[in-house]
Amino acid sequence: MLRVLEWSDGAVRFLDQTLLPNTEQYVSASHEREVAEGIRRLAIRGAPLIGIAAAYGTALAAFQQLACDPSLVALRVSDAIALLRSTRPTAVNLFWALERQRRVLVRFELRPPRELADELLSEARRLHTDDAHKCERISANGLDVLPSNVSILTHCNTGSLATGGRGTAFGIISLAHERGSLKHLYIDETRPLLQGARLTAWEASRLGIPCTLIHDSAAPALMREGRIGAVIVGADRIAANGDTANKIGTYGIAIAARHHGIPFYVAAPSSSVDRSLVDGGRITIEQRDEEEVTSIGGVRMAPKGVSAYAPAFDVTPADLITAIVTERGVARAPFGPALRGMCGEADGQE
Amino acid sequence: MLRVLEWSDGAVRFLDQTLLPNTEQYVSASHEREVAEGIRRLAIRGAPLIGIAAAYGTALAAFQQLACDPSLVALRVSDAIALLRSTRPTAVNLFWALERQRRVLVRFELRPPRELADELLSEARRLHTDDAHKCERISANGLDVLPSNVSILTHCNTGSLATGGRGTAFGIISLAHERGSLKHLYIDETRPLLQGARLTAWEASRLGIPCTLIHDSAAPALMREGRIGAVIVGADRIAANGDTANKIGTYGIAIAARHHGIPFYVAAPSSSVDRSLVDGGRITIEQRDEEEVTSIGGVRMAPKGVSAYAPAFDVTPADLITAIVTERGVARAPFGPALRGMCGEADGQE
Repeated sequence: MLRVLEWSDGAVRFLDQTLLPNTEQYVSASHEREVAEGIRRLAIRGAPLIGIAAAYGTALAAFQQLACDPSLVALRVSDAIALLRSTRPTAVNLFWALERQRRVLVRFELRPPRELADELLSEARRLHTDDAHKCERISANGLDVLPSNVSILTHCNTGSLATGGRGTAFGIISLAHERGSLKHLYIDETRPLLQGARLTAWEASRLGIPCTLIHDSAAPALMREGRIGAVIVGADRIAANGDTANKIGTYGIAIAARHHGIPFYVAAPSSSVDRSLVDGGRITIEQRDEEEVTSIGGVRMAPKGVSAYAPAFDVTPADLITAIVTERGVARAPFGPALRGMCGEADGQE
Repeated sequence: MLRVLEWSDGAVRFLDQTLLPNTEQYVSASHEREVAEGIRRLAIRGAPLIGIAAAYGTALAAFQQLACDPSLVALRVSDAIALLRSTRPTAVNLFWALERQRRVLVRFELRPPRELADELLSEARRLHTDDAHKCERISANGLDVLPSNVSILTHCNTGSLATGGRGTAFGIISLAHERGSLKHLYIDETRPLLQGARLTAWEASRLGIPCTLIHDSAAPALMREGRIGAVIVGADRIAANGDTANKIGTYGIAIAARHHGIPFYVAAPSSSVDRSLVDGGRITIEQRDEEEVTSIGGVRMAPKGVSAYAPAFDVTPADLITAIVTERGVARAPFGPALRGMCGEADGQE
């Protein structure tokens, strides 16, 4: 497993993902501002990883203040929480992780500052470890349902670069590789931002996973050629009935998989299930800037004045999904009762 | 209709397509070498347009030689044919157009050089006009089968930039627009070479066609939203049973169209039907350089050492095709007899 973010020698050390895949450069942040900046400029990305980074950033603020003026630790931590919260506008995991640290602050602010700092770091480590364990459980559950010696197609990035552990969909893939049951991995480049080409291909290479990169639109031809035995993708949000919002392009892959009789799996923490959404029709789809279609790498590809439509996600209806794999088990159709049972005791992000 | 290549004042005037969509620059070639160079560096592209350009290039050689030493016109024409033939290795239309000019040469080489030059130009104009008429007939036939006031999705470039007329699939679209029966055009960007974003979007803009550019992978989501009423694509090769090879990504669109009950039309000249191929399984699929997946605009996107798979085309089986529109009529299932009847008297490229 790749370690792309950790607490190291009183600093937050993280891989600068903006330089991938061509350069592997780690940043050692000794001030919470550097962590906030890392999140803002997408050097740290992936919802779970962002939350973990913010939690460490809060602890970092406490230790930094402890070294110069211990009387102001609580104040500095409070400011750090506000700063880190402002980095990404819609990152649920970020807000949730910072809320956990705020509760630590409330509980410990009248205790010796050293205790507050220690407790913030412990909480950050707990978040990190919990996420890593969740990834392991998702991966183990996914492995149980996979055919053996299978060639897998995946979309976008769902590995160590996005989570606190080995990942969700990619976690299953890397575990299958370790256990000798992965034949080959096909990776969609994942337009517009090319997370497949830039990030997943990097992770797969680093782990020695045999893989091939393809254009998003080539996947159906590969299915027809019999090269793909299963599809595994992550999820941004799952409705109560199993309808799943994920990176644009996922829906087309699911249709093609069904057409070819290939199983289509979704892997995500149970916290991705939003029971307040009856079905996928209720999921709000973020619209990206038109520039993501009309330009590539800053170069304008389409003529001026041409408009573009750039939904960030699409919704795959539950009836195209073979199974939804979470850390609590594997849900199959009918997904409503299965997901309810699986997430029954969970509250939101827990 | 856009005029991107023509004989003008004793020169071959063509739009440099490599500069599109940002710059519209015409080249006035007064030597056949400039035409050959234009074809080689893709300033002139699209199988029918390449053939037409080569035919004009041959006439250009004759007129140039006529002006300095008329006794060497036949020799110069023969050299020009060899030069133009060497520009693109697998362009069937190119070889076929040059064969037509070679026959003119054989017939007229013992006549006055002026007659040879005139006849080469007439033959080039005939090729050009014939292709334009073929486009008109394809477009009219396509219009007959389209629902009215329809929103259309297309893939790649099949318009005036690729043919001698208004185009094949795009010809139908532009004619529908002129007749007021096109509601909206959605254009796939068409990875890897982005012919949709760079070329089709440019043509649509120039013709005032209301259009929206999308990522290839977004099409299924648009279908689900009810935004697309029909799909029209071109064809590189059609087997005797109707299986159709076209730009990579076409097959996935056809599957998604079927899933949503949306008609899927193929538009192409009857010369695209290769009756020697029993079905699509016999069509050889060109593999593009891995670089087309791993890099964009010369910038490496995937990590070094990662391999890629880049088929240039995929094959859409006939059972996913609603109709195949040619200049000779509209074929529907069962395609075998329909195409046989349509191409019965045709020999190859005629």
